[in-house]
Amino acid sequence: MSSSQFPSYHMTPDEFRRYGREVVDWIADYYERIESYPVLSQVQPGEVRAGLPAQAPPQGEPFSALLADIEPLIMPGITHWQSPNFFAFFPANASFPAMLGDMLSSGLGVQGMLWATSPACTELETHVLDWLVDMLGLPGKFKSSAAGGGVIQDTASSAVLAALLAGRERATGYQSNATGGDGRLVAYTSREAHSSVEKAMMVAGLGSENLRLIEVDEAYAMKPEALARQIEADRAAGLIPCFVCATVGTTSSNAMDPVRAIGEICRAEGVWFHVDAAMSGTAALCPEFRHFQDGLELADSYAFNPHKWMFTNFDCDCFWVADRAALIRTLSILPEYLKNQATESGAVFDYRDWHVQLGRRFRSLKLWFVIRHYGVEGLQYHVRRHVELAQEFAGWVEADPDFQLAAPAPLNLVCFRHRGGDETNRALLAQLNNSGDLYLTHTVLSGRYTLRLCVGQTWTEAGHVQRAWQRIQQAAAAL
Amino acid sequence: MSSSQFPSYHMTPDEFRRYGREVVDWIADYYERIESYPVLSQVQPGEVRAGLPAQAPPQGEPFSALLADIEPLIMPGITHWQSPNFFAFFPANASFPAMLGDMLSSGLGVQGMLWATSPACTELETHVLDWLVDMLGLPGKFKSSAAGGGVIQDTASSAVLAALLAGRERATGYQSNATGGDGRLVAYTSREAHSSVEKAMMVAGLGSENLRLIEVDEAYAMKPEALARQIEADRAAGLIPCFVCATVGTTSSNAMDPVRAIGEICRAEGVWFHVDAAMSGTAALCPEFRHFQDGLELADSYAFNPHKWMFTNFDCDCFWVADRAALIRTLSILPEYLKNQATESGAVFDYRDWHVQLGRRFRSLKLWFVIRHYGVEGLQYHVRRHVELAQEFAGWVEADPDFQLAAPAPLNLVCFRHRGGDETNRALLAQLNNSGDLYLTHTVLSGRYTLRLCVGQTWTEAGHVQRAWQRIQQAAAAL
Repeated sequence: MSSSQFPSYHMTPDEFRRYGREVVDWIADYYERIESYPVLSQVQPGEVRAGLPAQAPPQGEPFSALLADIEPLIMPGITHWQSPNFFAFFPANASFPAMLGDMLSSGLGVQGMLWATSPACTELETHVLDWLVDMLGLPGKFKSSAAGGGVIQDTASSAVLAALLAGRERATGYQSNATGGDGRLVAYTSREAHSSVEKAMMVAGLGSENLRLIEVDEAYAMKPEALARQIEADRAAGLIPCFVCATVGTTSSNAMDPVRAIGEICRAEGVWFHVDAAMSGTAALCPEFRHFQDGLELADSYAFNPHKWMFTNFDCDCFWVADRAALIRTLSILPEYLKNQATESGAVFDYRDWHVQLGRRFRSLKLWFVIRHYGVEGLQYHVRRHVELAQEFAGWVEADPDFQLAAPAPLNLVCFRHRGGDETNRALLAQLNNSGDLYLTHTVLSGRYTLRLCVGQTWTEAGHVQRAWQRIQQAAAAL
Repeated sequence: MSSSQFPSYHMTPDEFRRYGREVVDWIADYYERIESYPVLSQVQPGEVRAGLPAQAPPQGEPFSALLADIEPLIMPGITHWQSPNFFAFFPANASFPAMLGDMLSSGLGVQGMLWATSPACTELETHVLDWLVDMLGLPGKFKSSAAGGGVIQDTASSAVLAALLAGRERATGYQSNATGGDGRLVAYTSREAHSSVEKAMMVAGLGSENLRLIEVDEAYAMKPEALARQIEADRAAGLIPCFVCATVGTTSSNAMDPVRAIGEICRAEGVWFHVDAAMSGTAALCPEFRHFQDGLELADSYAFNPHKWMFTNFDCDCFWVADRAALIRTLSILPEYLKNQATESGAVFDYRDWHVQLGRRFRSLKLWFVIRHYGVEGLQYHVRRHVELAQEFAGWVEADPDFQLAAPAPLNLVCFRHRGGDETNRALLAQLNNSGDLYLTHTVLSGRYTLRLCVGQTWTEAGHVQRAWQRIQQAAAAL
């Protein structure tokens, strides 16, 4: 087809060449000027909508009008996750190679629900997730060449749900899929675990009251002996332990649950053991940080998010299982209209049997591009650099008599507080975020309001962390 | 930041300008030559992986090497969903304006989990979904200005799961989230409904055995009187009906469940009523096709997929509820580290409470671009054209003594078969798909193997449908 043959109303390939360049340039410009925006959007509720027409346009508009609206209508409502001054939550860092992989994925527009619906979409994903097993020093049982295998989920929330479902099914002899629960299944995680575990319990029909929030030690890590006692008590009460989720790097404070000790309990009890390393799993690219997840060979499943700290655009959560048959048996359904020779041969993976969704995007392209662009060496460089910058920041906090560390800082997240008390810290955070100069978020640890600074944004360099600390000190002095 | 200041290993904005253009051109070239590829990938299992190195590269590679690998390594494993000769499954049609919106979304790289984490991401989504209520003639109660509201889910599978969970909670006084199920909840859909309903029952812990597959009439549409009888029998047995899913355009044959009759039963019984119009909902852009979903004001929730038949790249499922409080109460969890002023004010939507995932991409940008590029008029034009082409095809089938229609063809999907029996049709399908000239899939209707031809790909024109019919006739003659 030449552009003149393209039918009415469609944008032609030649128009796409032109407008595509404009969008590419717009994005490049954005990164060059990103520090000129307030990091946290300063709009009020309803302000963005107030700029938009009440009705959709009856006739089409030129592309120039669309692109021209981004700056005045959209940008005021953007919180700049890609700013080097973004230190909030966990990062969702992106990179240009990932964007280019994602553009190709959009352009190809394939569905990867079945191997047959685009074999490259399935095979590249399996392959790159096998690469990552070696890159991260994960147990070989997670490879597709063993009985395991990896899949890209959208988020760690979906990964923990998939793991919980597999644990639920294994514990009931794969019966609860057919009959539903009988209220006897219980699961375990720490008090400091991510809310997605509780949400998964609700979604999976197990009930949040059947999630045991195990107590933590002074470093906010799960106490394995408390886990063992709770499992014993539940068994004595006639309940069925089906799932344990440990966290490598909690969201609140980056606490490291003792994977080996928890894994040994799970192994002895025959309970599905999932390890959620959403952000911190990336650190395992560097051998010196792998000790945080020592014992991973005892896990049934594992997840980390390249879309957090590995320069890969959202969404990209990598999820591995040691026994793929258990996962597939949990999530497989084969209606007539999806049957095909390749599926029936048993020689292929059909990834729609590895998660809740049926349709799926070609997400491994961006991950493949990131790994090939940076190489293992480049990725290691940035992980080490981010950890180093966070550790320097922690040192400054410790050296300042007005501040204190609120938790151990094993990697790239620093939890700290002003010694002035909760209200002081609350005011400090509001002042900093309202300034637009940087963006931090908070948590509560041992009942006390705590500030969090996470170094993991793609473009964050020493100068940004230094300025953040200066701004914090200045704001504290002005309070 | 100028490009020279960007730190080691990263691709700079200037490099992105250059490589971004190359990728844009690659995509434009792809669409110009898309008909030169076999529509269905012809590779064997393992063939794509065999071309990839066993280990990730220790050092980074130049971008030119990455892009150069796409053609030889990836393209043989692509099934071309964007080919105008793609007539399989339901379409997943894309368009250039959608790709450009998606590029911007990748570039901005924001997380929309909370209003505060990018207000524009939330507000544009709410706004465009309100637009669509008017564009599609949906009931006003689905608007955010009423008690309802819309949200973009990844897929119709996730939408039906969210709806089922809300129905489950409402039926138990919002208790099953806390305590899990007691095995008494039952749900209903037709025998012809999508497998995602059964999968949602498994995921939600209700059990597939508690899904009643209601019988269908000769047009494969749910029999409302059979639904009413089944609900009555279940109540008499002490069970609790909690959810009914009707389909506007089943995957198998595009059957239209009678929405009003089913809705009246649900209303009388107080059961959550979800309507899944994944592909066919797009037809409601045209007033003359709205009668297929007459009675929608009786629905509690509704979903359709712009990523199927409305030129919007995957993923984009639009999901509305009439009572957003019920959905939010079902899916909300608020840990300390996500608390913020805007959430506490109650003046904003936090979309992570509208689905399973926490993190979310700025998906409304691509939908906004599609609606503004085409205008309502342009979208209507293409829907009418696709329906017209499918109806012409149905006419040719009817006029050929060797073929017959296998089901009514109300819109853009034609189910048909050769009169030679199942083996003939199976051989015919294999021959056509192996030729690479076009891609069709099959279903089974009333026990008989049936071919499906769905017209909905962005670039499909009259000539493609004519050639498809010629190829089908030729292949049949050669059998």
